[in-house]
Amino acid sequence: MRVVVPYAAGDPKTRLAGVLAGDERAAFARAMLADVLAAVRAAGREPEVLATGPVDVDAPVTVDERPLTEAVNAVLAGTDGPVGVVMADLALATGEVLAELFGTDGGVVLVPGRGGGTNAFVARHPDFRVDYHGASYLDHLRAAREAGASVAVVDSHRLSTDVDERGDLVEVLLHGEGRAAEWLREAGFALATDDEERVRAVRE
Amino acid sequence: MRVVVPYAAGDPKTRLAGVLAGDERAAFARAMLADVLAAVRAAGREPEVLATGPVDVDAPVTVDERPLTEAVNAVLAGTDGPVGVVMADLALATGEVLAELFGTDGGVVLVPGRGGGTNAFVARHPDFRVDYHGASYLDHLRAAREAGASVAVVDSHRLSTDVDERGDLVEVLLHGEGRAAEWLREAGFALATDDEERVRAVRE
Repeated sequence: MRVVVPYAAGDPKTRLAGVLAGDERAAFARAMLADVLAAVRAAGREPEVLATGPVDVDAPVTVDERPLTEAVNAVLAGTDGPVGVVMADLALATGEVLAELFGTDGGVVLVPGRGGGTNAFVARHPDFRVDYHGASYLDHLRAAREAGASVAVVDSHRLSTDVDERGDLVEVLLHGEGRAAEWLREAGFALATDDEERVRAVRE
Repeated sequence: MRVVVPYAAGDPKTRLAGVLAGDERAAFARAMLADVLAAVRAAGREPEVLATGPVDVDAPVTVDERPLTEAVNAVLAGTDGPVGVVMADLALATGEVLAELFGTDGGVVLVPGRGGGTNAFVARHPDFRVDYHGASYLDHLRAAREAGASVAVVDSHRLSTDVDERGDLVEVLLHGEGRAAEWLREAGFALATDDEERVRAVRE
């Protein structure tokens, strides 16, 4: 199985602009990418990075400047055999949960992201294609069924947590075991608790 | 194994006050409770409700007016043998994922909630006690280890999604299969998509 990790090399994680400066967002995104690549390897696979521009990383990189949907569909169309696609901002991914994803039977195996996105999938059916606009998880469920693929869904808090917004940082601080959590702590982020409320990530 | 579902019978789901009126919050909370009770039964267990006041529901009800921590600890102290505790606002719970929780080995098996809470647990160690204030998940990890219990964590998006805030409603609309999702749809909630953003729940 090819395992591809799409990565936006340009201005990443713009929705964290309220809490991180531009160079910080780039460094944090790189830390999350490193964690995802390590988790893929811990699951026994060799990751490839599919980037919108050159990126200096310890893995093979394919540059495709097109939007995510087109770039991923080019991989799907150009590959004989199964393809796994794992987003680069899954900072809670571990080898164990990715091995469960890669080992789940199904023509298309989907992992929903919080808020309706698609955080990862495995495609074994040759006709499955992606469309990441809008509520892509529901679209991908439909597309897989329309392609005639058997569909499975992996239920994982770690894999459903993509890190886009300030509220997601707390999950990294709570459950992260890699460089992204370390990066946040070194940048001064810590857990803060209000009684009755969920925990927040605050910067000291 | 006793399976206890704590339920706040008073003014529930106050953090949804911005989108739901008081009687609506009560009705939605009851719909979620019904879904959780059905999921516990689908997992092959008989649920008991632990409520802060009288509640008319199709399950045995114990009324304990004390705060959640004290009421749950009274159950733990008063029970010989394993106890499962499942929060009443896990609107995505299914029999399958609860069966996985109940079947996971460990002296204490924890399910973190998004934001650092504890959405469910199984306690087989006689000395484990809860404290739901603050980041209870981390506190419960520590308490379980200090009690000398073996600890396991269940990684489930369905069980980690407790429904407290407006942003959680979208998960119910996306993945809910029971009365809570139906209640939201009948109340006029639907998915709305902005390009590039996560999906939101809007009321028509």
